[in-house]
Amino acid sequence: MSGSTSPLAPKSFAVLPPIEGARMATAAAGIKYKGRTDLMMMVFDRPATVAGVFTRSKCPSAPVDFCRESLKGGVARALVVNSGNANAFTGKKGVQATAMTAEAAARAAGCATSDVFLASTGVIGEPLDAGKFSGLLAGLVQDASEDRWRAAGEAIMTTDTYPKLATRTASIDGVAVTINGIAKGAGMIAPDMATMLSFVVTDAPIAARALQAMLAEAVEPSFNSVTVDSDTSTSDTLLVFATCAAEHRGAGAVSDAGDERAASFKAALTDLLLDLARQVARDGEGARKAVVVEVEGAVDDRSAKRIALAIANSPLVKTAVAGEDANWGRVVMAVGKAGEPAERDRLAIWFGDVRVAFGGERDPDYSEAAASAVMQKDEIVVRVDLGLGDGRWTVYGCDLTKEYVAINGDYRS
Amino acid sequence: MSGSTSPLAPKSFAVLPPIEGARMATAAAGIKYKGRTDLMMMVFDRPATVAGVFTRSKCPSAPVDFCRESLKGGVARALVVNSGNANAFTGKKGVQATAMTAEAAARAAGCATSDVFLASTGVIGEPLDAGKFSGLLAGLVQDASEDRWRAAGEAIMTTDTYPKLATRTASIDGVAVTINGIAKGAGMIAPDMATMLSFVVTDAPIAARALQAMLAEAVEPSFNSVTVDSDTSTSDTLLVFATCAAEHRGAGAVSDAGDERAASFKAALTDLLLDLARQVARDGEGARKAVVVEVEGAVDDRSAKRIALAIANSPLVKTAVAGEDANWGRVVMAVGKAGEPAERDRLAIWFGDVRVAFGGERDPDYSEAAASAVMQKDEIVVRVDLGLGDGRWTVYGCDLTKEYVAINGDYRS
Repeated sequence: MSGSTSPLAPKSFAVLPPIEGARMATAAAGIKYKGRTDLMMMVFDRPATVAGVFTRSKCPSAPVDFCRESLKGGVARALVVNSGNANAFTGKKGVQATAMTAEAAARAAGCATSDVFLASTGVIGEPLDAGKFSGLLAGLVQDASEDRWRAAGEAIMTTDTYPKLATRTASIDGVAVTINGIAKGAGMIAPDMATMLSFVVTDAPIAARALQAMLAEAVEPSFNSVTVDSDTSTSDTLLVFATCAAEHRGAGAVSDAGDERAASFKAALTDLLLDLARQVARDGEGARKAVVVEVEGAVDDRSAKRIALAIANSPLVKTAVAGEDANWGRVVMAVGKAGEPAERDRLAIWFGDVRVAFGGERDPDYSEAAASAVMQKDEIVVRVDLGLGDGRWTVYGCDLTKEYVAINGDYRS
Repeated sequence: MSGSTSPLAPKSFAVLPPIEGARMATAAAGIKYKGRTDLMMMVFDRPATVAGVFTRSKCPSAPVDFCRESLKGGVARALVVNSGNANAFTGKKGVQATAMTAEAAARAAGCATSDVFLASTGVIGEPLDAGKFSGLLAGLVQDASEDRWRAAGEAIMTTDTYPKLATRTASIDGVAVTINGIAKGAGMIAPDMATMLSFVVTDAPIAARALQAMLAEAVEPSFNSVTVDSDTSTSDTLLVFATCAAEHRGAGAVSDAGDERAASFKAALTDLLLDLARQVARDGEGARKAVVVEVEGAVDDRSAKRIALAIANSPLVKTAVAGEDANWGRVVMAVGKAGEPAERDRLAIWFGDVRVAFGGERDPDYSEAAASAVMQKDEIVVRVDLGLGDGRWTVYGCDLTKEYVAINGDYRS
């Protein structure tokens, strides 16, 4: 948890309503931080269905390995998350720590260890002493209630300067269902401190397989389209739990992701994930400006996404944004290096509404003053039209500031 | 040209001997900079053979397009390089500027425009006023001499804090041949300022096709293995010219890259390019520490190179080096995100001679004090053994400092 709140923090936080069947509690276990909560447990008294996506890292953390196993059952009864230690690259000790935590959680919640899900975020390579908190889990289950979403969002923070919270409603068979989500993450990775974690809960009655298919689709334009520093955590974890409690209120069970009755739910889930993902990007380490890169006219969507990521990840584009410099030459450079089809002389580039380049050269009508005015905003939209096809994608990032270097490089100074 | 010289600059500069058949001169044309040279012309009074490699950008500069055409002839009589303006993304005006420069150079040198080679480095998107220097070229040809290598290296600098110079000798048929090279580049790209350019000249008698094949091989472990910020210029250009003057001293012509008689030349060329490439990396914008990433035990060399680049380009690894933090967890992260075969539990990582991680966890014998001592050096060697195969590669980079952000983001402050 960093000292000062990001200037890009939301003006007010979403208030998340209770979701029937999902209780939670937090504690200060003293894993690394002092004077704050660092442990969060969520309990589903009736089995919830569950879906998940994880880091693509070839060196995943022990909890990621553990969750991948639990996910095969498609059922969740408990989630335990700690901040302060990632339990990553911790060898056999790491596996022992996940086993010990899962056993304690299963005992406390009265379920099988395979119904437990785990996530850890914080320092990498340090053995996680699960003994520090495994004794607390029974108490947390006792204490857990449905109205602790903000506290849950705060307990999982590391270098985040604010908790990420979002809620949406949707309709299944005319019955209102709710989706709540929390997230953390300040670099896409900063193993000493950060990682991306997000936990989403709904009362909608969705079978595990359908939920997994919906999540796989919804994650593409949201969490898979944000970037802070192009680095990928060993621990990135996104889990969606469905308590199915709305079934008692008349919402029929959804067993297929293509079911038209779930269209509203899918749209709301995607929107919620995008909201959380953008909150993560806006809290990027050291970020002072949010960047939205909109690419259109690419040969296909995949190509548009790669070009958008090349722009959003370019250190030179990011430092130009930090310096409020409408340096469109660097956008040309980033398009050129993406390795995707592009034709210099068909390219058009805008900062906000100001077209700065067109037809292979500087826009003759381009006003430096107007572009500079755009760059002074706290969210900069960079739009690129490749003029080749219908492919389009939007990526969300942030600038690269001296504070990023300080946060990640100044430990010893 | 930046204010203060990099702490990683060489203690003394190589003194490049004359190479028969290659004359050069410089001038202050006032393209952008004041009080310094910004124009360099090299003349080959007898036709030289030539080979070249260029940026892979899909949005290359006008001079890159021009050189690609000239290269088809395989013959060079003149090279004109300016700093201060990249003539990139300048549309038809850019093509007109290259044509005007080439015509003036061809008139001055008494050759065809197709025997002229051009390079420009500096601001992107600004039309280049070739009229500022085309009138100077005849005088430069008159004035040119064989002993101006240092001046040539200085005239092509942009944000470089020192000129990059290297020389090697080799032997063909028992006759000594010389290779001289100059380079510039401080970011792999910084379109307002930098780009990577390198010009190499030898008196060895090598046919154009053979020279091209040798260059393609030599560039892989050298210029294609350095990175400052992962960004790729619209203008990167590396040209090798062979005046063939050593033929008169008894070195037989080499027409095939596989010719055993050229083995010494090939080795010297590779070594010279690596020397220049490392000088470029050590002058990375804002760099205070050089980073050498050695990857071994990968499934193949290509895989090793991708992993090494993922480590060397990671903002979190680079900021850790800047902060003298032996943060091997970030190296694990970078290995994991490279998308190449890797097994967490076979990974070993060293900083210098200190093994910090082994067998999927922190090395139990690892001394924090010893690792910290390594991190205080001005060149940090990060070694990774994947334990999977025989693939190996070495990549050269630098740290990421607040000065990098300042150089690239502080124009308007």
